[in-house]
Amino acid sequence: MSDASKAMVSPASSPCLPLAITMGDACGIGPEIIATLFRGRESAGCVVLGDVGVMRRAAAATGGLLAVARVDVAAEGLSVPPNCIPVLQIDGLPADLLQAPVGHVDARAGAAAAACIGRAVELALGGEVAAIVTAPIHKVALAAAGSPFPGHTEMLQALAARGREPPPVRMMLANDQLRTVLVTIHLSLRQAIDAVSFDAVLQTIRIAHAAAARWGQPGPRIAVAGLNPHAGEGGLFGDEEVRIIGPAIEAARSQGIDASGPFAPDTVFMRARNAPDHEGEFDIVVAMTHDHGLIPVKYLGVEQGVNVTLGLPFVRTSPDHGTAFDIAGTGRADAASLRAAVRMARQLAAG
Amino acid sequence: MSDASKAMVSPASSPCLPLAITMGDACGIGPEIIATLFRGRESAGCVVLGDVGVMRRAAAATGGLLAVARVDVAAEGLSVPPNCIPVLQIDGLPADLLQAPVGHVDARAGAAAAACIGRAVELALGGEVAAIVTAPIHKVALAAAGSPFPGHTEMLQALAARGREPPPVRMMLANDQLRTVLVTIHLSLRQAIDAVSFDAVLQTIRIAHAAAARWGQPGPRIAVAGLNPHAGEGGLFGDEEVRIIGPAIEAARSQGIDASGPFAPDTVFMRARNAPDHEGEFDIVVAMTHDHGLIPVKYLGVEQGVNVTLGLPFVRTSPDHGTAFDIAGTGRADAASLRAAVRMARQLAAG
Repeated sequence: MSDASKAMVSPASSPCLPLAITMGDACGIGPEIIATLFRGRESAGCVVLGDVGVMRRAAAATGGLLAVARVDVAAEGLSVPPNCIPVLQIDGLPADLLQAPVGHVDARAGAAAAACIGRAVELALGGEVAAIVTAPIHKVALAAAGSPFPGHTEMLQALAARGREPPPVRMMLANDQLRTVLVTIHLSLRQAIDAVSFDAVLQTIRIAHAAAARWGQPGPRIAVAGLNPHAGEGGLFGDEEVRIIGPAIEAARSQGIDASGPFAPDTVFMRARNAPDHEGEFDIVVAMTHDHGLIPVKYLGVEQGVNVTLGLPFVRTSPDHGTAFDIAGTGRADAASLRAAVRMARQLAAG
Repeated sequence: MSDASKAMVSPASSPCLPLAITMGDACGIGPEIIATLFRGRESAGCVVLGDVGVMRRAAAATGGLLAVARVDVAAEGLSVPPNCIPVLQIDGLPADLLQAPVGHVDARAGAAAAACIGRAVELALGGEVAAIVTAPIHKVALAAAGSPFPGHTEMLQALAARGREPPPVRMMLANDQLRTVLVTIHLSLRQAIDAVSFDAVLQTIRIAHAAAARWGQPGPRIAVAGLNPHAGEGGLFGDEEVRIIGPAIEAARSQGIDASGPFAPDTVFMRARNAPDHEGEFDIVVAMTHDHGLIPVKYLGVEQGVNVTLGLPFVRTSPDHGTAFDIAGTGRADAASLRAAVRMARQLAAG
């Protein structure tokens, strides 16, 4: 399906609640990619949580000819005309936020980014937005603002828990062909092997299963990839499949989950690939390591890979890149990954 | 490029020497996929090293209407008419080879397979064939025949060495878009990490570099993938990139090799992908583990992935599957991977 035809289909299938897009770090490319998004039809039904001034600056940086309208409630985002960015102005942002220099770490930008995320969670939990799409933040700016959270995921977990134990979450990377959920992410490969435990694998399968029901796909076919070449070939090249992964799959199946495997990592993603010329055998692949899961999703184009956090009580997607301070302010940042994140959020929230 | 247009192009670019196809295990699907290959134009210029009787049986099993012609020298393979399989009858095959039951392990089939490979190496070293394409053999049959070699690779290494130290070799998996060369293969992931040494990485880069010159691509752009997520992110998620892989790349560069990296595993294959819509940044990717390298090559279709042994003094390719005893004799085996192996052998030998 071409981008143009997708743009025409998406608004029709969009939920009746708006999608919230958090502005991200005001000094990074977040505001600009949002402005660029709003030049196309895929922004229909989106509302930006951020600062009107920052978004006006971003509109100008990306070529102008784009209105920025302050809205008071998220739902107003559904009724703005084309070429207009509806911005829900977040209360209590630093008064001199526009003084924070574009392309640099600044505590004011970090504080503003955190405030936008906080409001997004309130709106999602309150049923006022269908999903959250987060533009990139900068960890150092966040820390400079005194935030106790190292990044988006931890902040979203804590805010969603409302004081209770934060829910376990997993990262999914998804595009139109493939959805992979990762047991381990930012660990050395050696530590990742150690982190592949019965509980971690079973919990990943359960989170993937529950998330699919949320997005309107109950009983998804979950393939579980092995860790070792040929999934260990019966214990010949490693025994994690026999000791850990196989038993976790059995436990999931005994709970009524359609999980299968462990499958050889080198072919399971190919088997799951769902494209016009190839019907996928599975709906989701659980991968043991960051790169087993991410290599195939990114293979056909990194800009199509969308980061989705599973396990939260709402849908959250994000583009798969950072604040790119080196090109912030130039208007050159590519909005393709944000566009894909919006499209994916709409799909996942439609269930 | 469609299969049809490829078939029309290939004969024109084929070398003036024939390609040798070894028959493989006579009780497996090897003879049948060869027979099926000879029903299409991509077999032009190929000669089968094997047994006339076995190939006649395979021709019948795959639908008949295919002649089998005994040839006395490999070069005669270049001048057979369409729908005719030229078979160079290998001397000294077991007299009752046709009694070995199809679909089962049999020492006679193992002995015959080994004899065909031995003859192929003689012809390649003697400059009588441009390359060797090996149909699948069965390790147990080979062992039953008293062969000291566990598989093709070790046998080819030893025969090519002619009594000297066998040359170091590496496995490349390749299709039309991507060529990946593996530092480690059939080891558990934990053992593979231990096997990623300075020497192993440097030797892999050197073998890839030298092989590319053979296939007519001197000075290939070699990307070296990291081992850890984000290639370790400066030592944050593992230090193999800093301690081992980076220094090996530097050593290769100091020897005049255009190697670069270490790159994040999740995006380097995408960057190297070479397709009509995407110009690859690199010619070869060196991958640390079996699955980092094989996941992207197989992602678009396992039948397109061709196994190539680098480091031998001749080109050797093979289809990426085994003897499939369960369907041997039925004529149902898919020849797509063999076809791809022949195409790749022709490309690599054309240099």
